[in-house]
Amino acid sequence: MKKERQVDGLIVGGGPGGMSTAITAAKVWPERKILLVRPEEEPIVPCGIPYIFGTLKGVEQDLLSNAPFRALGGEILCDTVREIDPKARTALTEDGVLIHWQRLVLATGTRPHQLPFPGIERPGVFVIRKDYDHLEHLFDEVLPQSKRLAVIGGGFIGVEFADEVRKSGIEVAIIEQLPHLLLHNFDEEVAVKVEATLLEAEIQLYTGNGALALEGEGDKGPVQAVRLANQERVEADAVLVAIGDQRNVDLAQALNLTMARGGGIWVDAFQRCREYPEIFAVGDCAFKQDLLLRRSVPSLLASTAAAEGRIAGINLFGLQHERYNAGTIAIYASQIGDLAFGCAGMTANAARHEGLDVVVGRVEVPDHHPPTMPGTRMMTCLLVVSRSGLLLGGQVLGGPTTAEVLNAIGLAIQARLGVHELVSFQFGSHPRLTAPAHPIALCALEALEQLRCR
Amino acid sequence: MKKERQVDGLIVGGGPGGMSTAITAAKVWPERKILLVRPEEEPIVPCGIPYIFGTLKGVEQDLLSNAPFRALGGEILCDTVREIDPKARTALTEDGVLIHWQRLVLATGTRPHQLPFPGIERPGVFVIRKDYDHLEHLFDEVLPQSKRLAVIGGGFIGVEFADEVRKSGIEVAIIEQLPHLLLHNFDEEVAVKVEATLLEAEIQLYTGNGALALEGEGDKGPVQAVRLANQERVEADAVLVAIGDQRNVDLAQALNLTMARGGGIWVDAFQRCREYPEIFAVGDCAFKQDLLLRRSVPSLLASTAAAEGRIAGINLFGLQHERYNAGTIAIYASQIGDLAFGCAGMTANAARHEGLDVVVGRVEVPDHHPPTMPGTRMMTCLLVVSRSGLLLGGQVLGGPTTAEVLNAIGLAIQARLGVHELVSFQFGSHPRLTAPAHPIALCALEALEQLRCR
Repeated sequence: MKKERQVDGLIVGGGPGGMSTAITAAKVWPERKILLVRPEEEPIVPCGIPYIFGTLKGVEQDLLSNAPFRALGGEILCDTVREIDPKARTALTEDGVLIHWQRLVLATGTRPHQLPFPGIERPGVFVIRKDYDHLEHLFDEVLPQSKRLAVIGGGFIGVEFADEVRKSGIEVAIIEQLPHLLLHNFDEEVAVKVEATLLEAEIQLYTGNGALALEGEGDKGPVQAVRLANQERVEADAVLVAIGDQRNVDLAQALNLTMARGGGIWVDAFQRCREYPEIFAVGDCAFKQDLLLRRSVPSLLASTAAAEGRIAGINLFGLQHERYNAGTIAIYASQIGDLAFGCAGMTANAARHEGLDVVVGRVEVPDHHPPTMPGTRMMTCLLVVSRSGLLLGGQVLGGPTTAEVLNAIGLAIQARLGVHELVSFQFGSHPRLTAPAHPIALCALEALEQLRCR
Repeated sequence: MKKERQVDGLIVGGGPGGMSTAITAAKVWPERKILLVRPEEEPIVPCGIPYIFGTLKGVEQDLLSNAPFRALGGEILCDTVREIDPKARTALTEDGVLIHWQRLVLATGTRPHQLPFPGIERPGVFVIRKDYDHLEHLFDEVLPQSKRLAVIGGGFIGVEFADEVRKSGIEVAIIEQLPHLLLHNFDEEVAVKVEATLLEAEIQLYTGNGALALEGEGDKGPVQAVRLANQERVEADAVLVAIGDQRNVDLAQALNLTMARGGGIWVDAFQRCREYPEIFAVGDCAFKQDLLLRRSVPSLLASTAAAEGRIAGINLFGLQHERYNAGTIAIYASQIGDLAFGCAGMTANAARHEGLDVVVGRVEVPDHHPPTMPGTRMMTCLLVVSRSGLLLGGQVLGGPTTAEVLNAIGLAIQARLGVHELVSFQFGSHPRLTAPAHPIALCALEALEQLRCR
């Protein structure tokens, strides 16, 4: 006999987007019953995955807490939704539970890209999936037996993974087809500084050359090397393929939901799909519209997913007009060794590629003051500014405060501020905690001077 | 024979306000000759002063660098301006130099308040002046001979000084007449947490009781104790009086410049005085108008002075209309032991005192994630929000990123944002650098829920 359940809100998927929706909905609509269904018994913090292999020393150290949602009365079911009937408002799970819902949220995330390389099936070649057992297998069995790891893909995941793995004494090489690592996220100046930090940590970099094939004995022998486009051979007994993810939209496609032209489930400013106002989508599986350009942007970030989850959760049982998604801005940071670095909004390269005429304000300041203060590090800040003075983006390299400086830049972009305002904005300072004068104000002045000179 | 000099811009005073004016003017007006006159050969970083006595271990570690100004072609004269002739546009120094100027900037700062206590002249009783020799005397001679220091005044300087001095093994007590320390800057919740941290460091706290007199043998013997209003006696062989500062406005008064009713030289939005458009004033000696209340506010902060200096420097030889002072918002932070804490804008107490109906959004989050990440600390964030949803202020307690989170809050206040916007704003997150969800967005949601409930 089929089990049946009645809930008000059903959330499909338990990553940052789903969990953020769940927590927000449970908080804003305390009288409503919220059920989150996900296959994972122990959900992973996705952006913490690289740190499992170095800093955290174990998968069990990188778990997303269920406690905040449960404390608000939320319920979690460890199962997989297989079928959805949008007219009857039901969902059927793998274990045969029929769930009646009033509102449905798709938060089905991504999986690693299909891999185009010959030799991809060889033992020793792996991708990163957000899955406990898979990660435990990598941690316990694959990496401890490896002497030399090649990472294909010089984006954030590749770079963070490389820096963590080398801490356990494994030799690491990164292979990137673009001329520098991280070029999707940074202008050359920043990318080059991150590369220098990786080289100091004795990570080998192969840039400007894509991977062509994964070689080994016979057709099925363990991987022994990566062959590059220029025929160079990079030896490795383990290979991580980290060239991005693709969206899990099978459920949405089965519902015939409209897909955005740039990929992902089409959603409005309240994260609702086109066909059914009762069905929402958040996170990596959902379409994102760029805040500044108003067209699709592939920002598959946990923080973006969490922001969308807050919007869906707030509006789940009745729209709160003022709390909507004005458009996506990617804000992110990372850390390699002691060097933190990150970006908010557009790089100068990306802006110029769009046809925008931009100037770049640039300053270097100590992050404490006077610089004799223990723990002082230099912080480099770049602001990308349109000819009319509007702030379009920022990049920061520095110490522990880097990500929060970027959050302030991101906030200024979302508030549509210009350097004319920012240059006379006030910022606090303290010897042990900040630069003597804030890099945002100083950079704004640098940019204004360039605008004046032309 | 009198020496004469011709300059375009003359800046009187070399603290954060004067130096920020000087650097900015030299950068924005490179063709102009800028001269900064100050009495100090070695200028001190004012907010670094408490750290001289602990973390930095010496006055010579807390110097304001002249290099950035000199690198821009600026000149520094170690002298004191005694007389100003605003009609002739000249200034005469103590050493007899007659300086002809086109623009004059008064950045004359403050000195410690006149002290009302009987026994103030006793040996062992001191104030903090921003003066190399004075500080060196304290560092080399007064404190090394002290076993027990009493600090009168539980504001920022008193609290920071106490925490630094106790690191060299001196017993420390703080005396504050209000019911808690730091109540001018924080709501009780934050003040109480800072007090707990001070008590853990074995600093004794006497609150709710002002100092009445400084006692010792006879009329002139060295100080032995502080007598409190309730007659309690706090023993001490050294006493720091840190009850605030008063503005140095002698030069301005000699010029008959209009003074603001709340104190300080009256200035417009470009930092110009009322009588002479060629004379500017910045920093502690200048009047500040509160951004939200549009009336005088006693915000004697280095960061406020530096912001005013940027405005004066930009506008010194021609107004740049868009770069002006919209009003002052105090943003500041400090650190006691490992606990950083700070405030931006209004506290809930201050807002209610003004007659504003406010709610307080409050969250506690780890500053890394998952919380197993090494170095994770809890961060408490409070946002003070008007009934209409406008952000009025914020307070943060946490780790190394505290001051930059406050700068983002300060930026949101200056951009006149409301919680309606902030709740759907996007913030980046990273395991090693930030909370999983940003406290500003979470606090905005908490505040919105309170607004909805009433």
